Amino acid sequence: MSHRIAFLGLGNMGEAMAANLLKAGHSLTVYNRTASKAAGLQAQGATVAATPTEAVQNADFVFTMVTDDAALESLCTGPEGFLPAMKPGAVHASCSTVAPDTNRRLAEAHAQHGTYLVSTPVFGKPDVAAAGKLWLAAAGPASARQQLLPLLEAVGQGTYEFGDDPGAASTVKLCGNFMLGAAIEAMAEAFTLAQKSGLDRQQVYEFFTNTLFNIPIYKNYGKLVADRRYEPVGAAPAIIRKDLRLVLDESRTYVAPMPFANIIHDNLSISVAKGEQNDWAGFAERAAENAGL
Amino acid sequence: MSHRIAFLGLGNMGEAMAANLLKAGHSLTVYNRTASKAAGLQAQGATVAATPTEAVQNADFVFTMVTDDAALESLCTGPEGFLPAMKPGAVHASCSTVAPDTNRRLAEAHAQHGTYLVSTPVFGKPDVAAAGKLWLAAAGPASARQQLLPLLEAVGQGTYEFGDDPGAASTVKLCGNFMLGAAIEAMAEAFTLAQKSGLDRQQVYEFFTNTLFNIPIYKNYGKLVADRRYEPVGAAPAIIRKDLRLVLDESRTYVAPMPFANIIHDNLSISVAKGEQNDWAGFAERAAENAGL
Amino acid sequence: MSHRIAFLGLGNMGEAMAANLLKAGHSLTVYNRTASKAAGLQAQGATVAATPTEAVQNADFVFTMVTDDAALESLCTGPEGFLPAMKPGAVHASCSTVAPDTNRRLAEAHAQHGTYLVSTPVFGKPDVAAAGKLWLAAAGPASARQQLLPLLEAVGQGTYEFGDDPGAASTVKLCGNFMLGAAIEAMAEAFTLAQKSGLDRQQVYEFFTNTLFNIPIYKNYGKLVADRRYEPVGAAPAIIRKDLRLVLDESRTYVAPMPFANIIHDNLSISVAKGEQNDWAGFAERAAENAGL
Amino acid sequence: MSHRIAFLGLGNMGEAMAANLLKAGHSLTVYNRTASKAAGLQAQGATVAATPTEAVQNADFVFTMVTDDAALESLCTGPEGFLPAMKPGAVHASCSTVAPDTNRRLAEAHAQHGTYLVSTPVFGKPDVAAAGKLWLAAAGPASARQQLLPLLEAVGQGTYEFGDDPGAASTVKLCGNFMLGAAIEAMAEAFTLAQKSGLDRQQVYEFFTNTLFNIPIYKNYGKLVADRRYEPVGAAPAIIRKDLRLVLDESRTYVAPMPFANIIHDNLSISVAKGEQNDWAGFAERAAENAGL
Repeated sequence: MSHRIAFLGLGNMGEAMAANLLKAGHSLTVYNRTASKAAGLQAQGATVAATPTEAVQNADFVFTMVTDDAALESLCTGPEGFLPAMKPGAVHASCSTVAPDTNRRLAEAHAQHGTYLVSTPVFGKPDVAAAGKLWLAAAGPASARQQLLPLLEAVGQGTYEFGDDPGAASTVKLCGNFMLGAAIEAMAEAFTLAQKSGLDRQQVYEFFTNTLFNIPIYKNYGKLVADRRYEPVGAAPAIIRKDLRLVLDESRTYVAPMPFANIIHDNLSISVAKGEQNDWAGFAERAAENAGL
Repeated sequence: MSHRIAFLGLGNMGEAMAANLLKAGHSLTVYNRTASKAAGLQAQGATVAATPTEAVQNADFVFTMVTDDAALESLCTGPEGFLPAMKPGAVHASCSTVAPDTNRRLAEAHAQHGTYLVSTPVFGKPDVAAAGKLWLAAAGPASARQQLLPLLEAVGQGTYEFGDDPGAASTVKLCGNFMLGAAIEAMAEAFTLAQKSGLDRQQVYEFFTNTLFNIPIYKNYGKLVADRRYEPVGAAPAIIRKDLRLVLDESRTYVAPMPFANIIHDNLSISVAKGEQNDWAGFAERAAENAGL
Repeated sequence: MSHRIAFLGLGNMGEAMAANLLKAGHSLTVYNRTASKAAGLQAQGATVAATPTEAVQNADFVFTMVTDDAALESLCTGPEGFLPAMKPGAVHASCSTVAPDTNRRLAEAHAQHGTYLVSTPVFGKPDVAAAGKLWLAAAGPASARQQLLPLLEAVGQGTYEFGDDPGAASTVKLCGNFMLGAAIEAMAEAFTLAQKSGLDRQQVYEFFTNTLFNIPIYKNYGKLVADRRYEPVGAAPAIIRKDLRLVLDESRTYVAPMPFANIIHDNLSISVAKGEQNDWAGFAERAAENAGL
Repeated sequence: MSHRIAFLGLGNMGEAMAANLLKAGHSLTVYNRTASKAAGLQAQGATVAATPTEAVQNADFVFTMVTDDAALESLCTGPEGFLPAMKPGAVHASCSTVAPDTNRRLAEAHAQHGTYLVSTPVFGKPDVAAAGKLWLAAAGPASARQQLLPLLEAVGQGTYEFGDDPGAASTVKLCGNFMLGAAIEAMAEAFTLAQKSGLDRQQVYEFFTNTLFNIPIYKNYGKLVADRRYEPVGAAPAIIRKDLRLVLDESRTYVAPMPFANIIHDNLSISVAKGEQNDWAGFAERAAENAGL
């Protein structure tokens, strides 16, 4: 069944997801602050809107995928925000990695307006998004969630539901980025120890990612760590540092100390303090540098 | 091709490995300090030796799987040690998790005696050992290593070689236990945060281990963490705390700081200080306790 | 020279400071949300005001000493806040431990109103305040700061100036609480190790605080740690946990990782998660508990 | 009362202590592996011995002050060690910072030989030693300890006794170096945060070390941290890293986790990995570097 969908935020992730919605036969209107990023999708049949408001006015579903909380709130409920232009009953699929409370706050604004927000964070790098193989979590009002689920099949290989509280899916997303960061730091420490004790870094990487840790997360990020080359840039250090900050904010709010999260956050902070421009996994260099490599 | 093999050390892991060597058609002589543990293998056709010396005297290959460095050194080069009784040219497959230098030291003693040591640590829990699905690393003199490799097919699904230095395979094993501990701590922190913020701990576990972290290590240990029940005891906290101590010893020797390893070691130390008797993954309770759960 | 002074916030610290201003001969009007706390000062000659507005309307100087940022902002610029009632040119001595940006924000509100804010955090426990022996930091507009300095002699043994930015003195205060927390954690770890290795905890405390660490901070807090009794309550764990959170907020803002601050914050969080009601130095129990004491 | 004293180990600390024993009127024989270091003391009246054995043969008291456990054991009980040459009933004042078990082991060797070991670690930098203002801990057999105490007045301003177990005084020394390291790290983090937020690093140093932390440890080490110049070299990073390693060894033996000790040890390891040649307090640069300073 074809729907009228608006997609706002066409970074690497957003563009790939939008393309898959288009391929699935939906009628797509797109918007990006930097308009030139919409050209590719336009060539594939998307309509390009000049403003957020214009993008959403006929849409049954509005997807957003932007960098951070401030960008999302500005886009949705800011002075030029799209919320007032949404059709009654329309559903906002909020895909960005943001604080749980940001999605909760926006959900309340939607409720006032007669529309719905479902938090639908996605798990996977841009190439996974391009392949339509993301994993998704979804949380928000049950009926809106049920309407949205079939559409998500176009962008991912599966969606797990986490109830009515839109903040819940955001928390799951933050936990995921934290666990990913922990896997990277663990490899960074292990490969560095192995190398300094005379082993071949690549060989240790091959062993672990072909045996016990034989999954894309370890294989793909582990390759960067093994090679000590952190390109291309899937996400900049400052972006994921923000995610870890959100993790630690939740950790404070709910009084749940997370020593690993502190270390990952601090290592990402050092990347930011040093002005590193590579992929965020480059924080793995801390282990190497600290060992004098 | 059938070989005469001695297997010394019949704990959960050793017994399962010995049984698979027996099933593969080898002639097996076994020894265990507590002799009663050999009864099952005897029923399956193994010869039971009364002393380490008796066990190895006709063997072409000697497998050892014991608790720690002291036990291994005592068994091999102690006053009643088996080394002097080994046949010239025989190969010792040293499977225990011990310090790299322990295997190096024993390898030198073997060299003096005209025998060989290949370090062959194994990765997997007792049920994996029983299924013959362990992963193995192997390091030691090339010709001895090549003789040993075919036998290892009976106990594992694959062996990776790490050169001539027997310490190298031990280091890889230590790195593996460290990375495993890091995965457990990461889940402990994530599940605790999720639970305290209102999510269902089991549901978060299901999500991650069916999607991004869909491998036995996360599934099996994650189940313990999700349930907060750490039974049955695969390995006691003191055993794996010893492994993390060895990791940190290598980290010191090679001057490679490992902040995650410090945290895992300290959490295991708390398990030991509190006298906890459950599986070592029970150190995941630190995250729960510290959050007041 | 006698001044008309308003003092708002009569907790343990505030009451002691107000009493010293009164003794120094100033005309004092006091206000506290819980009015009964003003009785003692009234008996010593202070006028009790019913509202913040009433308290400040004739004052040349307004001191505030409240629990946290929200309380300070509410008192000063909230719906019933005192700022609109201040006389032109009057000076607000902001003594509470708050975020640097909170004082900066209030300073801007003062500037609009034609009044001044000088951040004047104080260092010392209630008994030190009662003795007029606090140390103070002061930052804010130069002329206002110069007017205020003589008054501060009544409450402390010395004031150090940190320039025109009122946030600067708040940062210094946060650094002080952090360094204090670090001293407590260091003693907690050292005394615990000593005790577990067979030494007498008290004797170790006596040695260090009579020799290398012979200052009140180590003597007074160290006594609590040595005795493992954290009474009376100078400040509750939640209060100082808030301070450490502010330290970590600054650490994030200025991208300056602080691993010790993470540990102190987490230990205080555990105190809060467990519902501990003793003095905040009770976080020293973490070291003891983790060692099984 | 004048005694015949041997002093072995004439580094910065040992030379200063030996000079004070000489000034106090004792008859002093000195030995150092690098003989040229004895020239200054010879000029002041000391006898220079060519070997450890020659140094101690007429001595009632033998002081040792060397770099580490191996040096001490070699000097005392090694192939050329002095122990067999000591007079019956003579007392060995073991001043070096070593593992508690090293002094315990040597004490047993002394007991077999009819001599005594008293562990007498000292607290203070070389300039403090030169001024005779060290603090000392003493532990060992009561009668030997009592004989030794009056002599220690020449080198320090006070000695605290910790019973008969010579290991106890070593533990106290290790705790002291740990607490000192914690003070340095605390200042490093605080001064770095202050500087990055716009404050003057020196001014913050002045404030804290003139007020709350007004003791030589904070003043002297804090000066290095404030200036970010770690000269002259009181002790190299590798020396104090060894001390922190001993702290962590005790922490493991007695199952007493010490998160601050882990951080200090790791920061010192980074100094070693980077080949830094300055004073050990230079590990304070980690906080600065990590903040991009």
